[in-house]
Amino acid sequence: MNDNCIFCKLANGVFPTATVYEDDDFRAILDIEPAAKGHVLLIPKAHMANLLEGDESVLAKALPLAKRIANGVKDALGCDGVNILQNNCEAAWQSVFHLHIHIIPRFENDGIVIPWEKQAYADGEADEYAKKIAARIKYTITYKP
Amino acid sequence: MNDNCIFCKLANGVFPTATVYEDDDFRAILDIEPAAKGHVLLIPKAHMANLLEGDESVLAKALPLAKRIANGVKDALGCDGVNILQNNCEAAWQSVFHLHIHIIPRFENDGIVIPWEKQAYADGEADEYAKKIAARIKYTITYKP
Repeated sequence: MNDNCIFCKLANGVFPTATVYEDDDFRAILDIEPAAKGHVLLIPKAHMANLLEGDESVLAKALPLAKRIANGVKDALGCDGVNILQNNCEAAWQSVFHLHIHIIPRFENDGIVIPWEKQAYADGEADEYAKKIAARIKYTITYKP
Repeated sequence: MNDNCIFCKLANGVFPTATVYEDDDFRAILDIEPAAKGHVLLIPKAHMANLLEGDESVLAKALPLAKRIANGVKDALGCDGVNILQNNCEAAWQSVFHLHIHIIPRFENDGIVIPWEKQAYADGEADEYAKKIAARIKYTITYKP
């Protein structure tokens, strides 16, 4: 864990955050500036700047897990589609330099473009979304918000 | 292979196309309507509609391979970043229903947004880009264009 990295701290539970899934290698949390409510970030616990420098044993686990989470998001929200986005370097909109994969719920004609207009959760709403998604990916939330 | 699927045919070499990488499971080709020249599509040879229905043994190989190709694109083009994008269902901009992963070269202040304004290659230019990228990912082009 890199002490100066906010995503190391979020992925490893140093800071509590609305979590939809966790295992030994990853935590999946809600983006706090989402493209749409229910937008998930899949983050490895180990520090790596981005895909270009990614640990291949971690990368091998990431896309099967993204499939599971994307299906959970779709089931939980009843959305019509899902985008998977992963940004590498500032020129490609990467703003936190710890690998993360965006899982973005999409509805027909939602008008979303990338980069997106940031949405905001009302108080407590993120936890409600997290619980609903977590339930669909068969993960019991154990953190204490 | 699904006879009605254009990406099955491209991935399996039924139609020749500018190829930057190929192995038993995947072919990586240039998008013919790219966000930027050098924009690659990583496509599994086996038919699967998208990530939501993706074969997990194939998915496990895809992201380590995307890392390799993204680094090849970055080295070949000297770009400043790379986006990885994978769209699921029409509401999320999926237009061909065979799984594919976009690997998009990015330059500082290139003004790209998603969905992108489609660029066009001049005659022969796509093959030049493909050769340059292929050389950086240590793959010898064997197709006959």
